[in-house]
Amino acid sequence: MIIIKIGGGNSINIEGIISDLAGIDGPYVIVHGANALRDKLAEDLGQPKQVLTSVKGYTSVYSDEKLLDVMMMAYAGLRNKRIVELCHRHGINAIGLSGLDGKMIRGKRNQGIRVYQGKKLKIVRDFSGKPQSVNAPLLHLLLDHGYIPVLTVPIIDEHNAAINTENDDVVRVLQKALGADTVINLIEAPGFLASKDDENSLIKNIPASDLEAREQQVEGRMKRKMLALKKLYEQGATRIIISDGRAEHPLTDALAGKGTVIA
Amino acid sequence: MIIIKIGGGNSINIEGIISDLAGIDGPYVIVHGANALRDKLAEDLGQPKQVLTSVKGYTSVYSDEKLLDVMMMAYAGLRNKRIVELCHRHGINAIGLSGLDGKMIRGKRNQGIRVYQGKKLKIVRDFSGKPQSVNAPLLHLLLDHGYIPVLTVPIIDEHNAAINTENDDVVRVLQKALGADTVINLIEAPGFLASKDDENSLIKNIPASDLEAREQQVEGRMKRKMLALKKLYEQGATRIIISDGRAEHPLTDALAGKGTVIA
Repeated sequence: MIIIKIGGGNSINIEGIISDLAGIDGPYVIVHGANALRDKLAEDLGQPKQVLTSVKGYTSVYSDEKLLDVMMMAYAGLRNKRIVELCHRHGINAIGLSGLDGKMIRGKRNQGIRVYQGKKLKIVRDFSGKPQSVNAPLLHLLLDHGYIPVLTVPIIDEHNAAINTENDDVVRVLQKALGADTVINLIEAPGFLASKDDENSLIKNIPASDLEAREQQVEGRMKRKMLALKKLYEQGATRIIISDGRAEHPLTDALAGKGTVIA
Repeated sequence: MIIIKIGGGNSINIEGIISDLAGIDGPYVIVHGANALRDKLAEDLGQPKQVLTSVKGYTSVYSDEKLLDVMMMAYAGLRNKRIVELCHRHGINAIGLSGLDGKMIRGKRNQGIRVYQGKKLKIVRDFSGKPQSVNAPLLHLLLDHGYIPVLTVPIIDEHNAAINTENDDVVRVLQKALGADTVINLIEAPGFLASKDDENSLIKNIPASDLEAREQQVEGRMKRKMLALKKLYEQGATRIIISDGRAEHPLTDALAGKGTVIA
């Protein structure tokens, strides 16, 4: 079982990824982002996103009701349905679902994010949270009948409200539920870079024992990503590949070990 | 088996409909629109919709690639996911799908719409078409496992492209595939009106034999709707109710026979 995470950047070669996918044997599950699309849509609608930085240094998007509306449009709407369409064009029997559908991905809403406003500590509550579990029976029902799930945010919280969450965390609960051995993360970089703006500083292998130290070296969004990868490894993914989603054949490259391999 | 079609107007009381739904026994399938939302989004994004009127007098929205993008956002994204969320809040185990997902609704792309441009006859081709069939095995798979399908456009054409279609036509192929006896159409009016701007001119019953004559009396979008209703009746729906989606209890009212009953 493979989990393929498609990043939400503008330059991700989605067509190349889906074309590659058509050549591999299943089963697999796709999880995709759409952050660039969401940000553009929010801008176009005159409600640009706000980013919160927690006191621990993790950044997240302030997810009020309007932002959730935009996410439903960008992730569960446009991006999800265009990926599903592309899959069918390549003979992949895709079915696109948000975490709300059939309660596919259940989470717990954040109690509040501790942020500094100037020098004042403030607790901000929004529609965001952490995924806790996936609807494994529904996933297996679909997979067993030949459907490829194409999953995305939002997810559903303990009070049945739509909440935003990090796709890296979605991948983590998904990997656990499915016992997926391989997780492929297609991003807008050649892989994990020693210095974040230098594409020539690709680190080809990261021993799992180094993940904690790596997490300390990075900041913001990447910090959260390293934490998610560490958890992923700890819970049993034996092959984690971070590879270039912008390449002509992103998935073929990744499966050939291009990019960063964590083992 | 009941099919509930929720209109896409601004004043439809979706909360009331879903709350009513929680009180009725299944099985049922929901089909919903989002045309007001789509139009507003298209406006906000600076790409207002264009309406085509065919030489036969039927109107339709010119569905180019950008309009399809907007539809994916409005119908399959925002409206679909908020309805699914609302369902779960009321204990209804909903799963939202566009016609693309698992090829749920397959159609045939229009060869072209014959329109007059000034006095010149022109054929305009876009991403629109007619639904031909539904994926009944997938529908039954979901229904049999306790999921309530919440369906919407776009649908998928014979070349696996996303196309726009009329939800009335979707309801028709769905009714046929499921052998649904009851179809409830919740709109922004008390039912079918003798004179379209007079809400007091409700026609409480339309004998099926009158449907053809009614079709000739109306224009534009309503003309297409009457045609769809006639076909629906001809293929075996024994109870078609057109009722007020703006009421406090739209569905309870409809099931009690308020609105227009076609039989």
